[in-house]
Amino acid sequence: MTGRFDIVATDGAARAGVLETSHGPVETPVFMPVGTKASVKAVMPGELRDLGAQIVLGNSYHLYFRPGAERIDRLGGLHRFMGWDGAILTDSGGYQVFSLRDTATIDDSGVDFRSVYDGSQHRFTPELAMEIQRLLGSDIAMAFDECPPAGVERAKLEDAVRRTSLWAQRCRTCMPAPGQLVFGIVQGGIDLELRERSAAHIVSLGFDGHAIGGLTVGESREAMFATTRATAEMLPSERPRYFMGIGDPEGVIEAIAAGVDMFDCVLPTRLGRTGSALVTGGRLNLRNAIHADDERPLEEGCTCPACATFSRAYIRHLITQDEIVGLRLLTLHNLHVLFELVRGAREAIRAGTFSKYRSTRLSAP
Amino acid sequence: MTGRFDIVATDGAARAGVLETSHGPVETPVFMPVGTKASVKAVMPGELRDLGAQIVLGNSYHLYFRPGAERIDRLGGLHRFMGWDGAILTDSGGYQVFSLRDTATIDDSGVDFRSVYDGSQHRFTPELAMEIQRLLGSDIAMAFDECPPAGVERAKLEDAVRRTSLWAQRCRTCMPAPGQLVFGIVQGGIDLELRERSAAHIVSLGFDGHAIGGLTVGESREAMFATTRATAEMLPSERPRYFMGIGDPEGVIEAIAAGVDMFDCVLPTRLGRTGSALVTGGRLNLRNAIHADDERPLEEGCTCPACATFSRAYIRHLITQDEIVGLRLLTLHNLHVLFELVRGAREAIRAGTFSKYRSTRLSAP
Repeated sequence: MTGRFDIVATDGAARAGVLETSHGPVETPVFMPVGTKASVKAVMPGELRDLGAQIVLGNSYHLYFRPGAERIDRLGGLHRFMGWDGAILTDSGGYQVFSLRDTATIDDSGVDFRSVYDGSQHRFTPELAMEIQRLLGSDIAMAFDECPPAGVERAKLEDAVRRTSLWAQRCRTCMPAPGQLVFGIVQGGIDLELRERSAAHIVSLGFDGHAIGGLTVGESREAMFATTRATAEMLPSERPRYFMGIGDPEGVIEAIAAGVDMFDCVLPTRLGRTGSALVTGGRLNLRNAIHADDERPLEEGCTCPACATFSRAYIRHLITQDEIVGLRLLTLHNLHVLFELVRGAREAIRAGTFSKYRSTRLSAP
Repeated sequence: MTGRFDIVATDGAARAGVLETSHGPVETPVFMPVGTKASVKAVMPGELRDLGAQIVLGNSYHLYFRPGAERIDRLGGLHRFMGWDGAILTDSGGYQVFSLRDTATIDDSGVDFRSVYDGSQHRFTPELAMEIQRLLGSDIAMAFDECPPAGVERAKLEDAVRRTSLWAQRCRTCMPAPGQLVFGIVQGGIDLELRERSAAHIVSLGFDGHAIGGLTVGESREAMFATTRATAEMLPSERPRYFMGIGDPEGVIEAIAAGVDMFDCVLPTRLGRTGSALVTGGRLNLRNAIHADDERPLEEGCTCPACATFSRAYIRHLITQDEIVGLRLLTLHNLHVLFELVRGAREAIRAGTFSKYRSTRLSAP
């Protein structure tokens, strides 16, 4: 049944589970690659499937403007449009609206802002955010929230928590697409009292899952991890927990350790497009001349499509010459690294060896 | 045996054959996608194989500068470097040197020119062109020729023919890589007397195959086809004939009809990257708003990876949003169209129905 979430194993706070969606089960912990504009950049749906992707993100803000949510609906919904038959989670557009804060004015009923595409004036409301996601037909829709940057004064943070609650309530009254799950978002920055207040109200609304929003917006890593651990504990264990916007290997492992089940981030794909590879212990910048004669794969023993065939020397050549195949190989490799990391965590949780897995991964040379 | 060329069928002047190379047999007529910088732009080797590519081009000029022919040699040769185990033909670099004519000065011993990469001064000679190709380890190396643009005065054309002969003779004395075939190039513009003179001399040097160079450099289509037909007749039927730089469907069919066996062109990949699809009867510009709601594939009945799954509406969306997957889908489609066109021609020649095939393809609505 859509929305059913079975926890199959726990290890400390970490959990391994299965979330049922309209497009099949999703095994958690799960990393969700970002397909902002109905495409995970440089990667085709079949390749995502081969890499082990179960669920990808779509972005309501961008799809609303290009090509338009109604158009995608007419064309059979987002899955059919982008040729992806796995699960899709859509964000509400709130993050984009607020990250362009200079042109946005917020009141309790919604947000006025200018489109990044043509500067035209638009208004997003909780109802519109839900309607866009209904038209897109995603498997998981996110409530419309207010996400302030790190370091704002407490009154502003408090106001964002209040407004996020108000909007969540309104989102809850909107009819989602058939089978579409709806997740609420907890705000409150790194203020645990506000997190508590936000979590209590959001949880009371009976969402299908809960997201920790408002992190990775400029706070320290330490504060982020502490807030993640504390906030995860405030969320009911029987529903999936989603950390919005984390995708570096260390961060993902820490979030899993905190009891988080789902993650998304542009990091692996963006790093790939800018010429970097995620490897044990850090990153390789393939623009560096040191790789010019290096016959080794990006990572010894890696089974990704890049490492199976190509040398660092070749990928460096492609990257320095702006060849599309170069950024594709790095993107495929980086996604593979994230999927393998999370798959390993899942197995370790099932085997009761997650704390060893965690310390091995975090201490990698 | 490497270099063996068996003609398995003829139909009028058109022929179907098999050329043995160090990396396996190549069935002709054959379209060769261009991998200028050791990568067919946006397409991975496995995808090329799946599309039916048998042989790809590499570019001596570009590879000499980046990443360097000696480096590729140290890394095991071009096949290993780019992860392609099919055949590779390398051009001699002459075309690039001369297409940047403003900075080139030619004498009988070679060409001085400035690198497009950093403006540094360099000199190419027939010996260096052969040495680069030996280091790259291609299956087919091309002799270094002088390729003048269309419309030059007869004295200049005559001089280019003379120098191309002189250089071909010097190329013939260079030691190729083990198993590497060497093709000579016939020049002479659209002047059939000069073509005759050039062909007679080049053929006398005993190359493994013969190329018709110096066309598609600005002359009329009519003159190009007439010259192709006449020049093909001047070349021995028992050796493969290669038209350098043609890749539009009509041009390919006409060249096959003239008895040409091999073709290369950046057209299908370049069209793909700039947003156009080759379809029956012409091209689709996917930037055009007319496609925004079109659920049809690029071409009904097409079995390429783009048409199997994706709509014109989706590909248009990707192209207008500069998504890499969009140009990849168009590139794969366009290559598929060329491979299918040539595969169809091969079958028609074997079946003795090539003239019907030709008229069907040329009269497509």
